[in-house]
Amino acid sequence: MSRPPSETASETASQAPSHRQLSLNLFVYPGGHHEAGWRYPGSEPERIVDITYYQELARKAEAAKFDALFFADGPALADNVRYASRFRLEPLTTLSALASVTQKIGLIATASTTYYEPYNLARLFASVDHISGGRVGWNIVTTSAAVAAQNFGLDEHPHHADRYGRAHEFLDVITKLWDSWQDDALVIDPDSGIFADTDRVHQINHIGEHFRVRGPLNLPRSPQGRPVYVQAGSSEDGREFAVRHAEAIFTAHQTLPSAQAFYADIKARARAVGRNPDHLKVLPGISPYIGSTEAEARALHETFNNLTQAPYSLELLRRITGLDLSGHDLDAPFPRHLIAPDGDKAVASRFQLVLDIVDREKPTIRQLTHKLAGARGHWVSVGTPEKIADDIQTWFENGAADGFNVMPPWFHGGFDVFVAEVLPILRKRGLFREDYAGATLRDHFGLPRPESLYASPARQSA
Amino acid sequence: MSRPPSETASETASQAPSHRQLSLNLFVYPGGHHEAGWRYPGSEPERIVDITYYQELARKAEAAKFDALFFADGPALADNVRYASRFRLEPLTTLSALASVTQKIGLIATASTTYYEPYNLARLFASVDHISGGRVGWNIVTTSAAVAAQNFGLDEHPHHADRYGRAHEFLDVITKLWDSWQDDALVIDPDSGIFADTDRVHQINHIGEHFRVRGPLNLPRSPQGRPVYVQAGSSEDGREFAVRHAEAIFTAHQTLPSAQAFYADIKARARAVGRNPDHLKVLPGISPYIGSTEAEARALHETFNNLTQAPYSLELLRRITGLDLSGHDLDAPFPRHLIAPDGDKAVASRFQLVLDIVDREKPTIRQLTHKLAGARGHWVSVGTPEKIADDIQTWFENGAADGFNVMPPWFHGGFDVFVAEVLPILRKRGLFREDYAGATLRDHFGLPRPESLYASPARQSA
Repeated sequence: MSRPPSETASETASQAPSHRQLSLNLFVYPGGHHEAGWRYPGSEPERIVDITYYQELARKAEAAKFDALFFADGPALADNVRYASRFRLEPLTTLSALASVTQKIGLIATASTTYYEPYNLARLFASVDHISGGRVGWNIVTTSAAVAAQNFGLDEHPHHADRYGRAHEFLDVITKLWDSWQDDALVIDPDSGIFADTDRVHQINHIGEHFRVRGPLNLPRSPQGRPVYVQAGSSEDGREFAVRHAEAIFTAHQTLPSAQAFYADIKARARAVGRNPDHLKVLPGISPYIGSTEAEARALHETFNNLTQAPYSLELLRRITGLDLSGHDLDAPFPRHLIAPDGDKAVASRFQLVLDIVDREKPTIRQLTHKLAGARGHWVSVGTPEKIADDIQTWFENGAADGFNVMPPWFHGGFDVFVAEVLPILRKRGLFREDYAGATLRDHFGLPRPESLYASPARQSA
Repeated sequence: MSRPPSETASETASQAPSHRQLSLNLFVYPGGHHEAGWRYPGSEPERIVDITYYQELARKAEAAKFDALFFADGPALADNVRYASRFRLEPLTTLSALASVTQKIGLIATASTTYYEPYNLARLFASVDHISGGRVGWNIVTTSAAVAAQNFGLDEHPHHADRYGRAHEFLDVITKLWDSWQDDALVIDPDSGIFADTDRVHQINHIGEHFRVRGPLNLPRSPQGRPVYVQAGSSEDGREFAVRHAEAIFTAHQTLPSAQAFYADIKARARAVGRNPDHLKVLPGISPYIGSTEAEARALHETFNNLTQAPYSLELLRRITGLDLSGHDLDAPFPRHLIAPDGDKAVASRFQLVLDIVDREKPTIRQLTHKLAGARGHWVSVGTPEKIADDIQTWFENGAADGFNVMPPWFHGGFDVFVAEVLPILRKRGLFREDYAGATLRDHFGLPRPESLYASPARQSA
């Protein structure tokens, strides 16, 4: 059961675009991706739990023909909520409310394999895929916040490898649940009285190390068959997981060479396991600070950094590096020698990213916090619309990205200016769609619709 | 922590209507409440997983000023899906999609304390209460279907008493989570940089037999403080649970005396524990078969019963009584003597209801299956609009009901005719609202908004 999800024998053929185009997702982060974005004038933090705030944003992103909206998540409250927006409406119920006011745009929610039961999560996602007419993606995470364990009766957060062990089996179970109704199982014939052809509805009878699940799911197969499988871990375990299961990868890189190395590695691994590398999209984050001139853009970025608050910034740094620098002189060089070699492996890839920044740029503590304040370690691109578009094109055409997760410093303004100023340039260069060609997230990403595992005669008789 | 939810010292006063009025919920059951409703001409079973089918229904129910829509649920697929619609879109994501197209009507979803984690369920409901602007209710069930256990790694379904033990603790935990943000905890002051007043955001640090949960919830307190607590079990455990926790009870009765006895018992128990009995609404189910004449209504009912299918009907009977009557002569008397005294205690209250029918009416097997086909044991009222209205008024004014769960035999038609023919009579008699007086489900039900448990100084220092 460990073959990748989109490579089954009889998958539906997907229509390839006539030339390669960017995928663009809007990464929605309440209050903005800059940690002080909520303090920026024009931001509307008071609407942080007002669904119309997100519905308006979804309509704008759909009008801009973005591939999808993306929502992060974690089942615990961060400790530093005193200084910034660090929570959100629950993503799956949010997606359902956004699906109701849009027609085409994809909708991606994060959910944890560590803290959900597969049957419950399978129902929630299948339901939203039905409600949205096939526009849902699942960002599969194992949850790195140790505090989450204490909300679920566990003394200790499961180790990285244990979490991935459960995650692999979770994917096996949930895939079987989503496939448990064959596409043609729902008959609904009032004359004969047959509602469902139960020969095409399958118990999955999964028995494994972490789960025992009988099935079938209590919902017919959803429009996309399964949600699009998205993944965001860049550790060794994360890459191995992505290559087995994912159809899109969100990733954080500060430099072109780093992104190129990751991209090449993922595509090579995909080929090595017999997958079509085009069916595994690599989508780095980009947080754009846009000005009419380079100077204006730099001033905008500086304005945001001046709104940061040391207790918040240092807490973020501590979570990544394990180092508590409260009370240190923020303008002293970052004390590289104090970091334990292993750091906190909970966010292994982000830890390495910070080490790379330190080794490359020798920043002060304050400079390092500003590096992370922009988008928690994601790439910050500062400049004119042309410069941002150049950056995107360079990464796209030089083996670093199939598209991007766009991470506005604040909402809605930071997104509005991207749409107004950068998108027309990308379109003029033929890099981004003028309109949607299809109606599902699989259509937008150019991914095949997988056939049910149970459609093959071999499995049916098993 | 085991006091009833709505009786805290400083609760918000609710506005009592000038005279007592009916509460009316629309119980949405895909395909209709009659087990063969999906086969009735004009029913649209092909739209069973089409969200617009429910959105249109929600708009109709709101236009009719109903208190709420109600959705049942269970985390497993029933075995008899071959002959009838026995599944639905996941209720919480459904509620979110319905909230997006309505403004006032309440939205009640069923969810199981046996098969959810409290932290996950707390987030889902709090989120939908935010999304709907305070219109959500939670129908708390312990799940009676043994097959569900096998979807969650359990060899055996937990016993009735064990399920209720977990349910009590679940309520304790989830109430604390919903209260963990005081109402004024969200500050959002860009000038000072304070986003949340973390002195008003509380870890719950629950340690119990079934759960250990640290909290706080990762969402500010929702518009209603907590969803309205609804309960639907009529067993002794169920009643005891309801009186401690519930604000509304859904219940099934075939006769006025049965409903009166239940109503009196619940209200007396409420008084005995010091609760205001008006804050515990008793809402029996009613499934109306409406005709211009009595004969026409009876013919309509007969048409539905003629659409039933023996394998389905006998399976329902088997689940309630434990008795497999396949192969028996359907027109022979129901073999009362074959029932084991205890039956299947999973649906204890429904078991007793069937015994009562048998003892009272001495039906044939077929007649008994027809009794259950209408609404799985709920009260079936057959007649002219005046007769249905009389029935409702009689129960309402004679200590049997505070309102009803209306269960149309088929959708949308069975609801449309109730709205067009019965509702005007109830309005003319002054029994049902002309318009909504408030905007939340608590407003519609006349329930107080509970203050956070953590608003009291005693708990804050604890």
